[in-house]
Amino acid sequence: MQTRWTDRYAQRTQSMSSSLVRELLKLTAKPDIISFAGGLPAADLFPVARFQDACRRVLSEQGAEALQYSTTEGERPLREMIARHTSRYGIVVTIDNVLVTTGSQQALDLIGKVFINPGDHVLVERPTYLGALQAWNAYQAEYVSVDVDGDGMRTSGLAAALRRGPKFIYALPNFQNPTGATLSLERRRELVRTADECGVPIIEDDPYGQLRYEGEHIAPLVAIDAEHRGLTGTGYSGNVLYLSTFSKTLAPGLRLGWIIGPADVIQRLAQAKQGTDLHTSGLVQRVAYEVASGGFLDQHVRVLRPAYKTRRDAMLSAMSRAFPQGVTWTVPAGGLFIWAQMPASIDATELLKEALAENVAFVPGAAFHADGSGRNTMRLNFTNMTPQRIDEGIVRLGRAIARALDRVTAPPAAPSQPVR
Amino acid sequence: MQTRWTDRYAQRTQSMSSSLVRELLKLTAKPDIISFAGGLPAADLFPVARFQDACRRVLSEQGAEALQYSTTEGERPLREMIARHTSRYGIVVTIDNVLVTTGSQQALDLIGKVFINPGDHVLVERPTYLGALQAWNAYQAEYVSVDVDGDGMRTSGLAAALRRGPKFIYALPNFQNPTGATLSLERRRELVRTADECGVPIIEDDPYGQLRYEGEHIAPLVAIDAEHRGLTGTGYSGNVLYLSTFSKTLAPGLRLGWIIGPADVIQRLAQAKQGTDLHTSGLVQRVAYEVASGGFLDQHVRVLRPAYKTRRDAMLSAMSRAFPQGVTWTVPAGGLFIWAQMPASIDATELLKEALAENVAFVPGAAFHADGSGRNTMRLNFTNMTPQRIDEGIVRLGRAIARALDRVTAPPAAPSQPVR
Repeated sequence: MQTRWTDRYAQRTQSMSSSLVRELLKLTAKPDIISFAGGLPAADLFPVARFQDACRRVLSEQGAEALQYSTTEGERPLREMIARHTSRYGIVVTIDNVLVTTGSQQALDLIGKVFINPGDHVLVERPTYLGALQAWNAYQAEYVSVDVDGDGMRTSGLAAALRRGPKFIYALPNFQNPTGATLSLERRRELVRTADECGVPIIEDDPYGQLRYEGEHIAPLVAIDAEHRGLTGTGYSGNVLYLSTFSKTLAPGLRLGWIIGPADVIQRLAQAKQGTDLHTSGLVQRVAYEVASGGFLDQHVRVLRPAYKTRRDAMLSAMSRAFPQGVTWTVPAGGLFIWAQMPASIDATELLKEALAENVAFVPGAAFHADGSGRNTMRLNFTNMTPQRIDEGIVRLGRAIARALDRVTAPPAAPSQPVR
Repeated sequence: MQTRWTDRYAQRTQSMSSSLVRELLKLTAKPDIISFAGGLPAADLFPVARFQDACRRVLSEQGAEALQYSTTEGERPLREMIARHTSRYGIVVTIDNVLVTTGSQQALDLIGKVFINPGDHVLVERPTYLGALQAWNAYQAEYVSVDVDGDGMRTSGLAAALRRGPKFIYALPNFQNPTGATLSLERRRELVRTADECGVPIIEDDPYGQLRYEGEHIAPLVAIDAEHRGLTGTGYSGNVLYLSTFSKTLAPGLRLGWIIGPADVIQRLAQAKQGTDLHTSGLVQRVAYEVASGGFLDQHVRVLRPAYKTRRDAMLSAMSRAFPQGVTWTVPAGGLFIWAQMPASIDATELLKEALAENVAFVPGAAFHADGSGRNTMRLNFTNMTPQRIDEGIVRLGRAIARALDRVTAPPAAPSQPVR
């Protein structure tokens, strides 16, 4: 609808579009739909009682402070805890390296605000997290893509892509959204070395790192970078901005994430945050600190891992039984997602309509591709559902895929003969 | 400090600067400083017990939903409540006219994102809220200023300023930050009419409207606009975006505000919000709804008004006794601030150093002027302090002003005579 406001929108709004995932979340709120669409953690595993205790304690002991205005950088105890946790990766992080954000999504927005001029290129994985594309489209970013395989970003393609002069590299090394792929240690080292040689910074997005279901933890890029440059002193000052969040380990409803980076960059990002939302809710920060402290965060992650592993396994097993031949998928060692590739003849957006008729939903993969490719791919979330529901949903989805395949492989119907 | 990151910052960061108010808030955290600097509500009046009840209820009855991802537009019951409250002003508002934001500051940021191209002009009051300048500087806005007097924006200057072609008009009609001035009904009508004739939208920022200490409520611009265009149907579709917040009536630590506007603009702003922080904390939204519902919001505002009036009166009375001749100030009918003008010879930023030596703080007025004028002005907050502390602080500040005045009016010291 054209209104008096329409011709006043800024040019950048032309690159904004509603996220398909979020529109789908609306569509799939009906209880009879089995939705593999959202990147939702299991609501039945939220530590609600612990949140109740924390709220009671924060409001009775520090109610006035929690409800008053606070500092842009974040509450000191929380920043100290985040610094301590990050230091376990073998890097020296102080609170001056930590900015608390209103979810990881705000971290992406602030990075766009501080670094991206219209037309600047960003190096992303193909496919990559669509929320990052959405955040940076608003700053009129362009993209250079590097393919992802079973070992994560194909670093062999890095040097060529860097010749396009991207402002920074955006990497999701652990259980990547959407493919679930994990960047191997060897490739992490190559990525850090190449980025350093070319003088291009790295944004490392790590919402899922704690959710590993098998295999050994691999050092994050920020730690490999610190080692690479021999940083041993106080305060990280290297080539990586490291992003994480409580959304997948505690609860997304908090909207609580953080950025780790060199102190001067953190200061600049905090300046940008001031104009954006002044600060993140102090009540939420204090409650999250109380919930996470005393070792609870680690303890809770140890509860989540086996539960999510069971769900992943249920989905993989159901896919083996119910999906037609010609469909392939990833086996993620952690995180929230399985990524499926269908025969080239299938358009996943068309398939979604068919799937919704079967009361099952997923996210078509094209939205995760900066260059619009990936039309025959889809992302499936396995954490927000019981194994029984997963099994039922995959059976329904298998039926929808089979029907779509039948249709494209069936010979075209013979033209009806005119009556003579 | 120049680092490898510095030359990668986007051009827009040159227009970002750290807000003086927020830097001052850091400086003035020492307990022995009496700070009139921040725009802080009274922490001792926060309804902490009510928040405790609300947290308990929300987490026990809807814990999983409150902690899960939510919709970008905001929680439905809260949007309905906001629509209902706004409808009391005599306009028909539905939930499609409401976007929940992470504080009013995010509303300003989203408006900048959706409307401001680099170099676009915004019509602001002189002086105006510095947080708006900060939000829009990041989108490289330019400004046209219209003076404020005791009756608010001088609408006689409007037509000339509109000839500069501003993208929108930014107005704070009630107890303006920083002057405390209130736009008269006659001027409100003129502003709405002129804006409509020129086809320029209005952003109406109203964080303090509920906090009136004397005189009659005046209709907001959004209601006058609806009347002006004869909008009587369902859903507001006029020329005004109306902003408000719970920060001054419940608690700023929630970071909870909202935008009322035409449904198509609300949709576009929600699209921008998706990429910015996905959504505002559902836990906070549900808790705020529980706190505010059942008539509590109105009831609590009736507690705040007399308490804040007493503090305002204490400050006005102390200023009459303790401030030197030649200083003048406003008498606000509501809100949080008194605005003082000193003789032209005084630089308020210099004075602040003197004042900090006396353990008292305020905000120098220049920061509220888009054109850098106002160096002899200051903003004083009266809500965050007991009358006794206000009195003591104003006495200290009076001493600092008197000393500064003595120095500029004293004849220059005679040069010392060389010993012969």
